This record gives sequence, C-alpha cells and structure tokens, in this order.
Amino acid sequence: MNGAQSLIHTLVDSGVTACFANPGTSEMHFVKALDDVPEMRGVLALFEGVATGAADGYGRMADHPGATLLHLGSGLANGSANLHNARRAATPMVNIVGDHATHHKRFDAPLDSDIEASAGTTAGWLRTSARPEDIARDAAEAVAAAFGPPGQIATLILPADVSWSDAPGPAAPVTPTPRSAVDDARVANAATILRSGEPTAVLVGGTVTRERGLVAASRVAQATGAKLLGETFPARIERGAGRPDLERLAYLAEFIEMQLSGVRHLVLVDTRAPVSFFAYPGKASDLVPEGCEVHTLAAPGEDAVGALEALADLIGAPGDGALLTAAGRPEIPTGDLDAGKVAAVVGALLPDGAIVVDEAQTAGIYTPAATAGAPQHDWLTLCGGAIGMGIPLATGAAVACPDRRVLNLEADGSAMYTLQGLWTQAREGLDVTTVVYNNGSYAILNMEMGRVGAEPPGPTATSLLDISRPDLSFVSQAEGLGVPAVRVDNAGALHTELAKSLHEPGPRLIEAMVPSGF
Amino acid sequence: MNGAQSLIHTLVDSGVTACFANPGTSEMHFVKALDDVPEMRGVLALFEGVATGAADGYGRMADHPGATLLHLGSGLANGSANLHNARRAATPMVNIVGDHATHHKRFDAPLDSDIEASAGTTAGWLRTSARPEDIARDAAEAVAAAFGPPGQIATLILPADVSWSDAPGPAAPVTPTPRSAVDDARVANAATILRSGEPTAVLVGGTVTRERGLVAASRVAQATGAKLLGETFPARIERGAGRPDLERLAYLAEFIEMQLSGVRHLVLVDTRAPVSFFAYPGKASDLVPEGCEVHTLAAPGEDAVGALEALADLIGAPGDGALLTAAGRPEIPTGDLDAGKVAAVVGALLPDGAIVVDEAQTAGIYTPAATAGAPQHDWLTLCGGAIGMGIPLATGAAVACPDRRVLNLEADGSAMYTLQGLWTQAREGLDVTTVVYNNGSYAILNMEMGRVGAEPPGPTATSLLDISRPDLSFVSQAEGLGVPAVRVDNAGALHTELAKSLHEPGPRLIEAMVPSGF
Repeated sequence: MNGAQSLIHTLVDSGVTACFANPGTSEMHFVKALDDVPEMRGVLALFEGVATGAADGYGRMADHPGATLLHLGSGLANGSANLHNARRAATPMVNIVGDHATHHKRFDAPLDSDIEASAGTTAGWLRTSARPEDIARDAAEAVAAAFGPPGQIATLILPADVSWSDAPGPAAPVTPTPRSAVDDARVANAATILRSGEPTAVLVGGTVTRERGLVAASRVAQATGAKLLGETFPARIERGAGRPDLERLAYLAEFIEMQLSGVRHLVLVDTRAPVSFFAYPGKASDLVPEGCEVHTLAAPGEDAVGALEALADLIGAPGDGALLTAAGRPEIPTGDLDAGKVAAVVGALLPDGAIVVDEAQTAGIYTPAATAGAPQHDWLTLCGGAIGMGIPLATGAAVACPDRRVLNLEADGSAMYTLQGLWTQAREGLDVTTVVYNNGSYAILNMEMGRVGAEPPGPTATSLLDISRPDLSFVSQAEGLGVPAVRVDNAGALHTELAKSLHEPGPRLIEAMVPSGF
Repeated sequence: MNGAQSLIHTLVDSGVTACFANPGTSEMHFVKALDDVPEMRGVLALFEGVATGAADGYGRMADHPGATLLHLGSGLANGSANLHNARRAATPMVNIVGDHATHHKRFDAPLDSDIEASAGTTAGWLRTSARPEDIARDAAEAVAAAFGPPGQIATLILPADVSWSDAPGPAAPVTPTPRSAVDDARVANAATILRSGEPTAVLVGGTVTRERGLVAASRVAQATGAKLLGETFPARIERGAGRPDLERLAYLAEFIEMQLSGVRHLVLVDTRAPVSFFAYPGKASDLVPEGCEVHTLAAPGEDAVGALEALADLIGAPGDGALLTAAGRPEIPTGDLDAGKVAAVVGALLPDGAIVVDEAQTAGIYTPAATAGAPQHDWLTLCGGAIGMGIPLATGAAVACPDRRVLNLEADGSAMYTLQGLWTQAREGLDVTTVVYNNGSYAILNMEMGRVGAEPPGPTATSLLDISRPDLSFVSQAEGLGVPAVRVDNAGALHTELAKSLHEPGPRLIEAMVPSGF
C-alpha cells in the first residue's frame, strides 16, 4: 500500500466519501489510488473554485466533511475564494493540496510556491505530511479537525513522494472534539435579561438556524417578547411551513440600524455582534446600537442549541410555544419579468425538501419572503461575500443529497466567476436548476457607488459596473457546458420552465431577463 | 484631490496607463477616479484571473507595467495563479488590491482575510498604503519596483479610506534601478570556457530571448561551436525569418537529458540551471549532466545582453556571424485535423508581426518548428505552469499592441480556467484569434500518469483525466461571451477560417477538433 492508498482508505474509514478534484501531475498517485477505494467518489471540476465551493455545499448539507484535491499552490489559490466562503460558513472540509516531492522542493521548479502561506489564509488546521508513515494518521486528524467545533477547513499538504512511497495501512478514525456545554450561569444570566422587560433581541447563527435551534429560539422569543433575529448570512437555514420563520439582519447597515433600533440587550447565540459588511465614509462599522449591552449565551463552537433549550425551559416557555410559519404561497404573477416576479414564481413552485442556494445578490431580496410559507426546504447563503459560490455550492449540495432538488438563484456577475460548475452538474447528472438573473450589471456596485459617496460616476466608472457590452448569453454558455438551458422574459414562461425543470432529472439553467435595480 | 485620484495620476505620470480591473465596493472611489484621469484605460474583466493574466500579457509586450485592480483578499486569490505565472515570467506589474478601510479592519467583516499573506506568495515588492498622504509616493515606488530588475510584481494594498480621504497631489516618478553590468572577469571566464574545446552549451532566458540577445548568443555559438539553447518556457521570444532560431529545452526531463548529453560546461545567461518540471519516482530533479560544470555569465537582473555582446566581441565573433533563420512555411495540409496539421496551417498563415500566445500544452509540440521560418513574430509561453494563462495573456497583449494580430493557441482544459477573458476581448474589440484544440482530455495528465509510474489507471482515474463527458462546445461558450466562433474538423476548413480571422478586426474563436495524444 502506498501513501495515497493509505490516505484515501483513512478518509473513507473516517466518513469522508466524496472528493471534489482538479488534479495535476503531482496528484497522479492519488488519482490512481481512487480506483482501489471505490467507496470514495471522485468528482471532477474544470476549475478549482468549483471543487472548493462544491465541498462547501457538500459539507453544509451532509454535516460531515467532503474532501477536495487541488494541484499545488496555484490550484489552491484558484480555490481560495470559495474556501474563504466555507471558512465563514464554518463548513467542515478536508482540503488536500498536492505538492512537489519533498526532495524536489529545493529546486524551486516553475510551479513551486509558498503553499503554507496561501493555505493559512483559509485553513483552521494546516499540516504538511512529510513522511509516508505519517499520512494516514495526519488524514484521520484532519477529518477530526474539520469538525471543529465549529466546523473548519483542515488543509493537508501532500508531497508527491509521500503519495507514491510505501506506507503502513490506514489509521483509525479520530474522535472529533465535542461542542462544549454552556454553563448554567450564562443561561441564567440570559434568562434574567429576557425577564427584565427591557427591549431585547436574540441574534442567532451557526447551528441555531436549523429547525431544532429555531424552535428553541422561537419558544424563548414568544415567551418573553424578545425579538428573534438571524445573522445576515447563515450557512444553512431550515425553513418553510411548519417551522419558525427567521427575520435575518439586512445586508445594508442602515437597515440593520432600523432592525436594532431601541434594543437595549442583544443576546448572541452562535454568532457575532453585527458589523457593517463594508466601511462607508462617516458611517459606523459596529452596528450594535449605542447603549445596547451585548451578552453571549453561546459562542461559535459551544452547544448553542442545548443552551437555548435550557434557556427556554428555565424561563418556562411551553414546549409547543414556538411560532410556526403557516403554509402559503404567492400568487402566480404575469407579465414582464422582474426580480419580484421571479421570487413569486419560485415561492409558488418550490418543492418539498428543496435546497435553495442563494447567490442572487440585489435580485434576490424578494425571495426569502416569497418562500417563507413554502414546503420545508434548506436555504444556503453567501457567508463570506466572495462571489462565485452559487453554482459550485449547488453542485456539492446535490452530490450530498441526491434525493432532493437543488434550486440555485444566481446573479449574472457572480455566475460568471465559476460557470464551469455547470459542466460538473451535467457530468454527474445532478438535479440542479439554476435560475440566472440576467440584468446586465454589477447592480450591487451601482448601489454601493452611491453609498460610499462616489456619485455620480462618469462614463468610465459606469462602464466598469456594466456587463451588458457585449450581452452575455447564459443559454449559449450553459449549452456549451452540456447543460440544457432556456431564456425567459415573462413570468408565465418562467413558471412553465421552472415547473418543468423542478420535476425533471438532471441539471437545467433558466436565464431570467430582469431589469437592473430594485 | 482624494487618495484614489492621487494614486491614478501618479501611475499615469509614471507610465502606467492600463488597468485591468474587477472592482468591488471597497474600490468604488478608485473606479470613480478613473473618470478624472482619462489617460488611464480601465479594462473590465469578469474574473480576476483574467485581469492578472492580461496585465502579464500587457507587461510582456509593453516592457513596462500595466496595473490590476482587485477586490480584497478573495479577488487577489482569484488572480493569484496568473500572478504566479507573471512572477515566473519576471513581468513588470503593479497589482492594486483594495482593502477595507483601516478603521474597519478590526471588526473582521465577512470579506476580511489576510491579504498580505496571500500577496506575499507572488509579489516581489509588497506594501500596504496606510495613509492618504503616502499613497502617491507608494504608487511611484511600486512602479519603479515593478521594473526590478528583473521585472516583478509590485503589490500595493489600498485601504478604502486611503482612497476616499483627501490627499496631496501626485508624486513624481521614481527612477527604476538599472540592470547591473557584468564584470569583465566573468566575461573573460566564459570566453576561456568557450575556447577550451570542451563540449559547451550556452543556455539563455529572460531578456536574451529578444532579437538583440539572440543575435549576440548566436554569434558566440557560431564562433565557438557551442550549442545554443533556450530555457523551456521563456516569457517572450522574438523569432521568425531573419532572426536566430532558438532550440528550447524540452518539457520532459528525459528529452532535456538528451539535449544536454555530453555537455561539459553549461553557461547560464539570464536563466537558471535546468530542473525537472515535476518530480518522478527514481528520476533526477537536477538535470545538469554528471560532470558538467555550470557557469553563470549573467544572472537574472544583470545586463545579460550587454555581457553576451561583450563576450561575442572578446572571442572575435564577427558582427554578422549570427545564424539567421531562412524564410519558409510548411505546406498546407489536407484531411482530418490533428495537432501536426494545425501547426502546419498556423505556420502557413502566421502574419508578419503576430503575437503568438502558446498555451496549447501537448497539442502544441509541433507549432514552434512549423513557425520557425514564418514572418517575424513574438512567442509567449506559460512560464509558471499554472494553466489558464492563455486567453487572459492574449487579451493583455492585444491591449498593449493594438496594431498587431494576436494568435492564442489554447488547450481545451486550460481554456476552461479563464474563458471569461473572451468577453473582455469582445468588449474591447481586440484583434485576437483563439484556436482551441478540443481533444476532450487532460492529455498531458494521461501522459504524466504513465511517467510517474501510476499506470495503468482504472476507470475512476481515467475518468478524472477525461473532459469529454459531456462534450464541451467552445463555439457555444464563445458565442455566449460575445465572440463569434466556428468549429472545424479538417485542415482545409481550419485554413479557410484562420486566414479569414487573421485579417478581420475583432476577436474570433476557432474550435479545432483534434484527437488526443501525439
């Protein structure tokens, strides 16, 4: 058994059974070894940003790590923007980066670079496996490290000779560190605040945006009159009819200030205090209102759900006291498309058990409300702000959940970062419907240009925010990548095409022509 | 005047007049300021790897730096593979990376990351401009630093508040450091070796692969019987009829060993001693033959061309003693296409003054010989080995040289990394012809799989090297990006289409269907 075989056996024994890969010469023994361990599914991506984003989507839905296989420092760099998003999502992931053979490093061959420096920007756990006798143990530790808590990227750098040399057999799985319990004093403190009668908001994120956490949070809010809020970009929200609805903090600081206006106590549960996404001249970065006290019930990595349930019980909230969303769908719109009508069509059609990947940017503001009462589904957001997440994330989510439909709501500018992921969807026969909002613009930047006080832009600046010259055809591009596609410009056509796609196997892209702006 | 205006004025005053950009919110003041300095051409890319690769192509052809504008750490990461290639090419470049406002950094907002750590992997000069009163001077120093010598990436990190705050006016240009002269003793030593009668090879790279350097090198070789060789992947070769031909070292170590077999002295001129591109089990990394002495006439950054000319004069090589390539073109082939026939068609048609961007990988092995006697042209190669360079490089070369035709010979797998660059070619109306070799395979990896001793691959491994399931259509994709395109599968059609495209304005893509392998 060589190092690569030992590594892959260990990953599989530790529960890692999908590897999103774009390999090169230094990873050929790893690739070859995949045939010796059929339990590991190798999924090819045409670009590393697809592989890392897919591993993020996989990890968010599977609740255990998927792996990537990347080629040297450049492959890692290509995947780093989506690794950044996965880091912010606290997604468990094992990131395997091939390197030159250990004896080859000193020659500074053309593809050589400082992999550890680059990897350190996204990895919570980082190790170069320097000897074939270490690789199995390192892999087992990487998997355990990926679980965190909270989840994180464990990056294992794999020199080519460690892959190809004889190695001992696989290592036994390593038990991940459990989440630490929140002590009773913090729960009691939160109870005191919530009972004080002062305006209080409970801000939840991380593990709490799943059904169990939301039920506990809603029980607390209902029993005390506190305002329940979610962080702006949760990794995964379980929502829909029969579950508690979650009002999320807005993207724009001005709206967050309105949401938190008058709040005297902010209780954080598995999230951080709100900050402005960007800085703006003369505007605040810290969005906690003046005079508001911040309390942490559970920090990321702690047993936040357990703490919330204990809190709900302590304050005497009834077990069935959560406010659950009633079933309901929007009316089916007609006429020329706009972002609001796309949202209504999505809300009208979203199937039970769907996974929604939301990278719709400005065009997506109407979809959460339009889908609140739809059948139960998961909602995945862009936690790190690095665009180009959506198509890869949808790909990985579909690999993790082959029995569920994935609906990817995708902005045009963001789609252009990692469109290659469509090819992987076609190759793997994944049930992903991508709706691209084609508004021919980096619309969010047109808005931000005004917000940073840089208005009015002149012709050059305007041109740099405009992606309509030449017009992009997402239909042509998707077809070139092997995914059937259609363009629609009215609500009826979108309804027809989306309804068809949501119940047909395999991927499909719908290019929705919408005006830019709100 | 704000910091952004001060920065852009300084760049223009220092000779930097093109900026390849994909901006975000933190760069909005820079974008707005472009309208105040019309001498700076802003070129939008849909992905940062296009922007950095274009700046590489621009710098190689202009011999002075172009600029990039990238959005935070994730934008930098997306551009880093092509920055790696530019680093290996010693291309002068000013890389501007926007960052959050200085007062916003401590809040660790979602898009925040360690930009300096990432930038350090590719930049030869790196600075964060922390105050608006520093930005102009920092920019002037960045431009000077970009010139090296040798050329390098100067990365300037630009916090948003430094852009938007009041700043003094532009700074005066800073004079770059000149190349240091090679002392007489080294020239004399090289002369002694060359006169010794022992088998000697002169290996050239860097600045020497331009006409003046090659003429001097050829004089030396012709006068002494030394073998003249070029490094495997020069940044830019001036070649064609009437210029010295340059035999380059092969990509594969086995062939390099043949090329250097029996050589007792290796004289390096603006390059390094040859090493294997990758490591292979049981094979050498250092490719200098046993018993061969290595001598450095000029190291990268020194005046290598001057040293070679002094050497040629010292050994009494006649001024007209260079061996110049005779004009000649291949016969026009017929029948089903293969890589050799593509090379022959290119050789038959290459126009005077063309710029060839070669990222053809395995399919490109026949093109250097087929074009050796073509009219004079430049040849740009993949110096760093990070695929996805070709389309961006061609884009930037065309911006630098609007009166010359750019011919981009592009492998299918590599094209899929940065295909978005076609859109920038269409947007800017650039005279670029892209020939994609569609063989449906990472053919080079099929070859490397055997070379690393990992044969025979099983079905999973084979599948991970195969990009034909589903088939990619480069015609559909190009059309979706606004570039007219055509697919050809025989030599006559390629000849017709290439001839037409080489003399029509604007970009065009030709998808050449070729079998995989040699």
